Amino acid sequence: MNRNSFLLSGFRDFNPNQMINRKYIFKNIENIFIKYGFLPIETPVLEKFSLFSNIYGSENEKLIFNVINSGNFLSTINVSDFYKGYKHLLSLISFKAMRYDLTFPFYRYMISHENQYFPFKRYQIQPVWRADRPQKGRYREFYQCDADIVGSDSLISESEMLCMINEILTSFGINKFNIYINHRLVLKSISKYIGESLKEYYLYIGIDKIDKIGKYKVFKYFINKGFSYLSLFKLENIFNFKGNNKKKIFFLKKKISNCDYITSALDDILNILKYSSLFFNKKKNIVFDLKLSRGISYYSGAIFEVKLNNINIGSICGGGRYKKLINISNSLNFSGIGFSFGLDRLYFVINKLNLFPKNKFSVMVMIANINLNYACFNILSDLRLKGNSVEIYPDVIDLSKQLIYANKKSIPFVLIINYKSNHLDSFILRNMLTGEQNIYNKKSIINIFS
Amino acid sequence: MNRNSFLLSGFRDFNPNQMINRKYIFKNIENIFIKYGFLPIETPVLEKFSLFSNIYGSENEKLIFNVINSGNFLSTINVSDFYKGYKHLLSLISFKAMRYDLTFPFYRYMISHENQYFPFKRYQIQPVWRADRPQKGRYREFYQCDADIVGSDSLISESEMLCMINEILTSFGINKFNIYINHRLVLKSISKYIGESLKEYYLYIGIDKIDKIGKYKVFKYFINKGFSYLSLFKLENIFNFKGNNKKKIFFLKKKISNCDYITSALDDILNILKYSSLFFNKKKNIVFDLKLSRGISYYSGAIFEVKLNNINIGSICGGGRYKKLINISNSLNFSGIGFSFGLDRLYFVINKLNLFPKNKFSVMVMIANINLNYACFNILSDLRLKGNSVEIYPDVIDLSKQLIYANKKSIPFVLIINYKSNHLDSFILRNMLTGEQNIYNKKSIINIFS
Repeated sequence: MNRNSFLLSGFRDFNPNQMINRKYIFKNIENIFIKYGFLPIETPVLEKFSLFSNIYGSENEKLIFNVINSGNFLSTINVSDFYKGYKHLLSLISFKAMRYDLTFPFYRYMISHENQYFPFKRYQIQPVWRADRPQKGRYREFYQCDADIVGSDSLISESEMLCMINEILTSFGINKFNIYINHRLVLKSISKYIGESLKEYYLYIGIDKIDKIGKYKVFKYFINKGFSYLSLFKLENIFNFKGNNKKKIFFLKKKISNCDYITSALDDILNILKYSSLFFNKKKNIVFDLKLSRGISYYSGAIFEVKLNNINIGSICGGGRYKKLINISNSLNFSGIGFSFGLDRLYFVINKLNLFPKNKFSVMVMIANINLNYACFNILSDLRLKGNSVEIYPDVIDLSKQLIYANKKSIPFVLIINYKSNHLDSFILRNMLTGEQNIYNKKSIINIFS
Repeated sequence: MNRNSFLLSGFRDFNPNQMINRKYIFKNIENIFIKYGFLPIETPVLEKFSLFSNIYGSENEKLIFNVINSGNFLSTINVSDFYKGYKHLLSLISFKAMRYDLTFPFYRYMISHENQYFPFKRYQIQPVWRADRPQKGRYREFYQCDADIVGSDSLISESEMLCMINEILTSFGINKFNIYINHRLVLKSISKYIGESLKEYYLYIGIDKIDKIGKYKVFKYFINKGFSYLSLFKLENIFNFKGNNKKKIFFLKKKISNCDYITSALDDILNILKYSSLFFNKKKNIVFDLKLSRGISYYSGAIFEVKLNNINIGSICGGGRYKKLINISNSLNFSGIGFSFGLDRLYFVINKLNLFPKNKFSVMVMIANINLNYACFNILSDLRLKGNSVEIYPDVIDLSKQLIYANKKSIPFVLIINYKSNHLDSFILRNMLTGEQNIYNKKSIINIFS
């Protein structure tokens, strides 16, 4: 049997090296979240299936992992239920489902905690599960990392988010990226301006694909959906405009002056850019981009997305403003703004750019075990008292084997008691990277590692 | 509808205050694990049900949460399967199950990663799920925190574990506790010595209950199980012996001299105590206790458990040495030693003893939003540059409401632009704990928070 086949397809173990890199990512992100006033919450892995069925759409709902009711789950089931098919049976034998994203749990959290103050700035870093077909870079278990501000309509929130994203990426040494920004109502105005208001949904779908499949194929898609040639001519005219953010906004304001929302939407963009420039100091990496069209059924205001200039893996984070946290009819009105980082893409990028910290050793010193000498125990305790990560090899075995262990565990220093010396205060300190060995007394060694 | 009823019974949300306390616990424990050379791994929430059914015993297996196969899980099911009962059906419609503990996943990890070096010192802090009846202090989702050393028989590992436990508890300010230690083979020798070798299992079960139900009831249980009066007389004689660790060991060595394992088992205890005293310096809180009898079907050597002197909530951590990581017949021989902390008990204790850090503010400064003044954005950026957690209230609303927000979020300082001043470099710094207000220029404020 293939040993890997013990692991479920689409699921992963993380070994110590991977874990240390992942913890580095989490820690950086969390520190910056907190620096911006976002506080952590956590919600259970399981939620009531009845509550969050029907909110993701039937295609997505197929990807939800359901948990079978405990005990004799058939006790209330008749054979007639069995014949009614699996969907019917599922609703009878499964009342619990695994977390599919961090949005529904946050919404449920807000309902469960009615005395919450507003605006509520939360972050949440937890895994989610989707029964997707596993493929390269797509897993069935993966971490999401969400931050939201609910209960405020201020555009300062948008700017804070953009600034925070900027700080998170640069904290990893990622510098070559753009934050693309657009506005739901700008897109809506364009659909009206080109005379295709009734087909606005197809416009959003198509625009979203321009970067992936090219303008030519997208325009073919529009023609298939019945867009007029005049509308496409007008659309091309708008998309062909080149210029910086301010010029683009000025151009659109003039061009689409007859639409209701356009002015306030463009002013929103202007204000977000203005506040952001105050937060960012000299940064100029925010790009107003009409081709951005994400979360079609979800976002109502500004939308944004981050793409790297030198690595083509799509967006590594994105978000936007919504009128309702969850788009269900009886949803309480938690309006706000949120964004999400995909941990796996971030890990991929940091690794690809070789930006994970080097020489950050987990264990600093291994003490070789020659004959259970007390002096070894003693120096071990003292090195730990100074805060060092130190271990003693547990078994008295051949020194070369102990050194192999230290090597495999990437321990940079090995301490060996010096038998050639007459007293027990002499140690050989071996640098495992260079192979260099030097003799020190205990005091000197404690000093080296203080 | 009760808002809390949105949450599944036995499951919990964690709000920011709880999260910050939990993160404090995790961070302390992880830092000390790493200091002792243990490195983190993580395994998936879901594992193949076929692999870990049959290892927990049928009573425990009932507590496993099973995930229904995705899609039409009935496609290969006949009505005859339906009539064969829920256990049969379960094996056909569920191939995945949720993590029940951290032992099986670690075992599976070791099998999946064949090139692992040994001894392997791992820690793992992840939630597990059990379909237990929820009650006070017992949840269906809870974190376990395990550390193991596999691939070494050295008793140094036992001492390292005890020393690490000691350091973890004292790092929280918990000082009044004992680490109780016993040895499987000492108990086995006692069963032989009293002439009840064939009933050793009942002896272990009974001993484990002495602290909970008292000696009288336990002896009644032994009588019910057919123990002879002579055996109970001998047992009482042993248990009545009072003395420190060394005296107890000396007494047993003399008393049970005719049993095979007793000498080596008692020497093990002596060595563990000796090594531990070298690690611990002056600590004397390790107690050799014959009444300790945990993990009956699991541990093979030394066993240990920590109890607090002033809070009666049972053990807050425990572990022992095993010959096999998992007790299944074809199990690979990963011998080693492990222990486990229960996060919820630790949280309870730290909270009860009022030991969570005070005045550790998540957000240090809130900048009041009077009229979107640029000076506010400016000082916000500068305070963050100094590493402070700072937020600006997003909306321009009544100052008193902004102060209420800061209060609810336990933000200790609020900064308000000083309108009475003629220039924009004057701020009122309000201490939210005392209500005190002072006027400073920007430079002074940056200095205060540097």
